[in-house]
Amino acid sequence: MNEPSWKHEPGPGTTLEENWLFRLRRERFRSRKSGRAHDFYLIQLSDSVNVIAVTPERKIVLVRQFRAGSQNESLETPGGLLDAGEDPITAGLRELKEETGYAGEDARVVSAVWANSSILTSRSTTVVVTNARPVAPTKLEPGEEITLELVDVDDLPRLIASGQIDHSLVVLGLLWWLAEGPLGLPGASAEA
Amino acid sequence: MNEPSWKHEPGPGTTLEENWLFRLRRERFRSRKSGRAHDFYLIQLSDSVNVIAVTPERKIVLVRQFRAGSQNESLETPGGLLDAGEDPITAGLRELKEETGYAGEDARVVSAVWANSSILTSRSTTVVVTNARPVAPTKLEPGEEITLELVDVDDLPRLIASGQIDHSLVVLGLLWWLAEGPLGLPGASAEA
Repeated sequence: MNEPSWKHEPGPGTTLEENWLFRLRRERFRSRKSGRAHDFYLIQLSDSVNVIAVTPERKIVLVRQFRAGSQNESLETPGGLLDAGEDPITAGLRELKEETGYAGEDARVVSAVWANSSILTSRSTTVVVTNARPVAPTKLEPGEEITLELVDVDDLPRLIASGQIDHSLVVLGLLWWLAEGPLGLPGASAEA
Repeated sequence: MNEPSWKHEPGPGTTLEENWLFRLRRERFRSRKSGRAHDFYLIQLSDSVNVIAVTPERKIVLVRQFRAGSQNESLETPGGLLDAGEDPITAGLRELKEETGYAGEDARVVSAVWANSSILTSRSTTVVVTNARPVAPTKLEPGEEITLELVDVDDLPRLIASGQIDHSLVVLGLLWWLAEGPLGLPGASAEA
């Protein structure tokens, strides 16, 4: 890859908001091509991970929880933010256990993308585990209220197409995993 | 669907930042279940659309542009934010023409999801058009510097799997479109 067409301007930029979840920054970049400067807004948010946990009965462990952005109950693969220095698989297994009490085997990365590089600095990884089974009580954070739902693997396309699963990063990970074989993506799943 | 498990608290909440692109809000919700209150951060951002423009030669019209979140040159389907009151297909055709100079036919919606309902209020739609061809000069906004790239439909899985296309909303739309037939999703594409 060549160097980026826009270069960060010298200077500190501006922090517009900082809290436990993210830092909002306005930073100036200058085009190498036109020489013109432009201010970009950046939300510095930790990387995140979602886990597709497949049970021996070919069911997927999903969580239903309130999302303020949609103001509805969102049906999602369990997941959350990476702790500092944590790798996506470790974080995924931790979040899976905290949110659902489940653990699995043979964890592998399905997909890794920029969550929304127009405005967020975070990356989003999807991990899959097989032989998922309940091993511990759940351990939820303040503000987390979660209901478990197990759905058949074969029902996932219908749940996605009908909008019953409609969080972009969750849909992306599930579609990628489901499409590995049919689209010839690397790492085509043996577990599906 | 039942009513959401968390209810917006009376009161105006707090606007932490407001600019041409988004409004950042902190709003308090209260759990109907536990009675506990929690402050959620919300980025109120317009809905967005991306367009899969398929040429008669089964190539896809992509744009390469700088993204501040990843600080790299991102290869994406053309797209942008909906104007107030605009529907996704109208906005998609407008953005396609502005960014690439292309127009197409038989526009239809492939996918519609919440962009990231953990923190964003916006929805993201992917539209596909067939028989795409150049019809006009491009019309770029300040800060937009875009290079066109046409890629074969058959190369898309490789470009996604290798991370050469790695913006979540773009990958989601392309995977959904590619997987319509193999996964039996409704609206399985005749154009692919």
